[in-house]
Order: sequence, then C-alpha cells, then structure tokens
Amino acid sequence: MSTHTNLPLLIAGVGRYLPARIVTSGELEAEHGLAAGWIARYTGVYQRHRVTDESSSYMGAQAAREALDDARMTLADIDLILNASGTPEQSIPDTGVLIQRQLGVHAAGIPAISIHATCMSFLVALDISATLIAAGRYRSILIVSTEVSSAALNVREPENFTLFGDAAAAAVVTAPPQPWNGVLPAIHRARFETYSEGADLAALPGGGTRLHPNNPALRPEHNFFHMDGPGVLRLTRRYGMSFLEQLQSGLSHGLGDIDLVIPHQASRMGLKMLGAFGWPDTKIVRTLDRLGNCIAASIPATLYEAVRQGRLSRGDRVLLVGTGAGISLGGVILTY
Amino acid sequence: MSTHTNLPLLIAGVGRYLPARIVTSGELEAEHGLAAGWIARYTGVYQRHRVTDESSSYMGAQAAREALDDARMTLADIDLILNASGTPEQSIPDTGVLIQRQLGVHAAGIPAISIHATCMSFLVALDISATLIAAGRYRSILIVSTEVSSAALNVREPENFTLFGDAAAAAVVTAPPQPWNGVLPAIHRARFETYSEGADLAALPGGGTRLHPNNPALRPEHNFFHMDGPGVLRLTRRYGMSFLEQLQSGLSHGLGDIDLVIPHQASRMGLKMLGAFGWPDTKIVRTLDRLGNCIAASIPATLYEAVRQGRLSRGDRVLLVGTGAGISLGGVILTY
Repeated sequence: MSTHTNLPLLIAGVGRYLPARIVTSGELEAEHGLAAGWIARYTGVYQRHRVTDESSSYMGAQAAREALDDARMTLADIDLILNASGTPEQSIPDTGVLIQRQLGVHAAGIPAISIHATCMSFLVALDISATLIAAGRYRSILIVSTEVSSAALNVREPENFTLFGDAAAAAVVTAPPQPWNGVLPAIHRARFETYSEGADLAALPGGGTRLHPNNPALRPEHNFFHMDGPGVLRLTRRYGMSFLEQLQSGLSHGLGDIDLVIPHQASRMGLKMLGAFGWPDTKIVRTLDRLGNCIAASIPATLYEAVRQGRLSRGDRVLLVGTGAGISLGGVILTY
Repeated sequence: MSTHTNLPLLIAGVGRYLPARIVTSGELEAEHGLAAGWIARYTGVYQRHRVTDESSSYMGAQAAREALDDARMTLADIDLILNASGTPEQSIPDTGVLIQRQLGVHAAGIPAISIHATCMSFLVALDISATLIAAGRYRSILIVSTEVSSAALNVREPENFTLFGDAAAAAVVTAPPQPWNGVLPAIHRARFETYSEGADLAALPGGGTRLHPNNPALRPEHNFFHMDGPGVLRLTRRYGMSFLEQLQSGLSHGLGDIDLVIPHQASRMGLKMLGAFGWPDTKIVRTLDRLGNCIAASIPATLYEAVRQGRLSRGDRVLLVGTGAGISLGGVILTY
C-alpha cells in the first residue's frame, strides 16, 4: 500500500441537509428518565436532528442539489453518483440508485454505485474518486453520504441512543482546472486500516442474510446498533499512533503543516483523544454538540461547516480523519 | 465519462465456493406443487446450490483462499480486501470486515471495504481496482463476491424463488509484471449506466432504514426480493444496444475481436437476448443451468469456470457484461 500517491482533486462544491426536527438532550432526558445534563456530559451532544418522514435518498438528494449549485454545475456535468453511507435506505437496489431517482434523472443513465466502509465511507469515496478521475474514467463525481441513524437506535443503550443524529452531506469533486495561488488542490496522502478483531464492538447484526428480518429466531435487539464505546476507544488507542505516523510522519505528536483537522464526530471521548496527539484545539472543527454522530455524514457535514464559515480556504492543507465500525481507521490529507 | 481508458490489470488468481447442498429443480417442483419441468423451461435452471449453515463471509473466505493459492500469493501480499456483493451478511460492519475476520487476519490492518452495485458489483470492483492499482495506491487487491440469495426469496414468486442460487467467487488482481506473449493484461474498456426508472423492477425494500426490521408496519413481503423479469428485460432492450455501442463500436451486432463472453447469468431469457446481438453461442460461457443466478457472484463464478476449463487463456480478449437491479448495465473488456 502506498499512502503517499499524489492525486489532483478539487472539491468543487459542498452541500448539506439537516432534518427540520431538532431533538434536544433535555427532551431526551425527560422522556427517558435520564438525569438532567447527563447526555451532554457523557456524549458531548446538546442536540441532534432526527427525520420525521424524510428518507435517506431524499436527504441525500437535497444535499446533492446544494453541492451542485455550490460548484456551479448541473447533473449534466456529473458522470458518476457515489453513495458513501454507512446505512442503506433498503437492501436492493443500492441507495445510489434511489438518490439518482430523487434527483429526477431517472433516464439519463448516470452510473450510481455505493461504497460502504461505515463511518469512513466518505473518506474512502473521496480517495477512490481521485483515482477514478486521475485514470480519466470519470470527470466529475457526486459523492453523497446520507444517514437515518435514528431508525436503528436502542433506548436501552442511552449512551448510543442519545449520541447519534440524522444528516446528509454531499460533495462534487472534479479534476482541478488550475492551481490556486500556485497550489494544485490534491489528495496528498490517504490511508485506511481495518482490524476485524473489533468487528463486534460496533455492530448491527440484523438487516442482512445471516439474521434475515423474516427469520423467526430474530429478536428486536438484533436490529439495533450496538456499540461498546470503551472497547472502540481501546483499539483506536492501540493502533492510532502508528496509523497517524504512517499517514504523515510526526502527526501523532503535532500537526506539522496541517492547517485544519476535520475529524469524524465519533463521541466526546473520541474527540478528546485527539488532544493527546498535541493538535491545537483551535484547528479542530467540531459539530458533535449540535449534530451528534451522523455516521458517514459526519465528516462531510463538518467539512461543509468549515467551508461555509470561512475556516477553510483554497490552498489550505486539511486532515480528514476518524475511526468507524470494523474497526476501521481512515485518514486523508488534501489541499482544499 | 471515458469508456476507453486503458488500465493494466492482471487477474492473478480465481477461486470459488459452492455450498455442498444441491437443490434440483425436480425437488422444488415436487415441494411447491409446480409442474414437472416447468422450472428449467421457465428459468433455465436445473439445479442450484443453497447454504445449510454457511454464512456469506465463510463462503467468501473459502473462495478467497483458493484465489490466493491460485495466484501463488498469501494474505501478506494483499493490501486491500474489496467485498463486491449485492447482499450483506449484516448491516454493520460491512461484509468486507467479516471476510477479513474469517480469513484469520484480525489484527493485520488490511483495509476492508464494500462496493455495492447489485449484480454488477464485481465488474465495478474490477474497474475500481484497476484505477487504484494504476494510481499506485495498492499493489494487490482481493475481490470477493459472496451471496446467500436463498435468505430473501419468496415462494409466492416461483419464477424468482427457483431462479437464484448461493455461491461465492473471488479474484486476486494485481499490476501485470510483464506482457504475456507481447500482450499486457489490461482493462481496455469499462462502462456502467444506471436507469433508476427501473428502481422498483428488481427490489428488496426491507433491511434498511426506510422499512426497518423493527418497524411494526413491516410485512414479510417487504423483506423478500421481488423482480418483474419482463420489465427488466424491456429496459435492458431499450438501453442495451446503445450501451454496447458505446462500450465498443460494433458490439451490438457482432463480437469483433472478443474471444469469450462471460455474461451475468441473469435468467434464461436474459441469456437468450445475447443471441440478438449476433454473438456466436460457442463464445458465451454459461453456468445458469447448474448454479442459477448468483447475484454478484455469477460473473466471477462463471469466469472461474472458464479459467479452470481452459476456455480462457492468457492474452485472450474477454467481455464481462450484464445487467442488475437499478436497473444498471455494466461491461468490461479486458485482456486476460
């Protein structure tokens, strides 16, 4: 594996969709008999968005439209739709197809594909997009991460039930037409590692062929997402330092030439752990407090906020990084 | 989109796993009150394999081991595991992670990712692998397609219930070390098109966030695969000719320089339609009669048979082609 391949890539536009309904931690505490203030203290989440009747593909299409407008492009410019989500809307066809339908281009033939690497799906899709564009296979790719996490949460695991939020985020990526102030937007480093010794630490055992929904032996718990947060953190600690060193030398004890860090919004403890690497707090973008953990949509939803708030400028060097079920570690260093 | 990018790629090894249990069409006819001979006449399937207690990841790992042996490689040579299946074993983590665990490399860190494009998943994975290898990101990739289709079949749709089979197939792909007899193994053409106007023609509505397994409104039918075969064929006819012409000029009325066709084993009618393109029957490899439609595993399982039976030799020019839910059309032309 070569972490160091340099691949030109322009994030030409970003979009986001948040369900209108906001659920505060105070409401959840009252409803589920939790001590006032416990949720924010434990998870770091003060509020999260939850769908009323929005589907994954509807949310994804809304985010995609904004990303296209932002890039000053239309669907006629897009030659691949990449759904990069941790949860599907339905088993078959894949959510990429359903997003294409929601976008109203039923008969245009734009290929629609899904990439699944749980919370790291957007990062994997970004890296694969850069290689597809570098190879000349596609010119412009629409990446969409959309998550209705609330469908599979277990009220009996309040630390997880209150942690997750629903959201969609999208990015239009293309080959950079020219350098910005002499710097060419590109992915400089990308690295992924999966340790299946942690396969049961964050899992949703149902929904597939092993515990099929019609299986009489199925219990409701099989269809809830279960996470052993401390277990995930333990594995992340075991492999995190060497992962970061292989991504970029020196990264496990300082940011070096990185201008901004956009981490997966895993949890309060997950974000706190970033401090151990000596990364200045002011360079880490956070949405966890207002959006919760939005699975694969967390990184692009946080990237979106960094762009819209002007914290990220063309030519900046950004680290996108996180862990997901697997467990998997992922990191991409790019010039925006 | 450029269909014509030339990407060096060697299929270094192939493997396959078929469940030991064979279910004949005669047995199914007797069991479900169907007229003797109806299944083979309607679907083209005389027998299919069905799992007893094998899981998707177990079958995938067995096929992967054979592909590694065939390539004279070990897991230490593999730097990416790509699960390319239409159905998952469970919702989270993705089946790539579970295959890694079955292979016994829990702590090696090999990244594991899933690509989902229903029956075209293997073709998409092959093309993405070629671009990842060309970019220098990975050296050798293990692609696994594994399907327990029998989990989600509806006895009330006998034309589908009897059509599908369970199987896994794998391929190890890498950069070609040197040309074979002066010909460099490579992908010469690849093209994918998705028409979501057909999203409901082949669908499994359950298993995701929209009709979550714990949803009280859920009916058992939501968790069965439904296919309107004639509807799929109608759309394939509408878009197939122009798709093939864009893949390679002349392909919709003759094979030109193609030595062998490995089609998705969609159905008897699906395979019969290939005759309309003027392709000689002797150049089309078939496994439908003995394996049924094995979703994404059909193409690599048929490729496996062509290799093992000596119908495919180094330097041959092969067309891998088919349609899947979406509906999606996919085609890859490569030198083996």
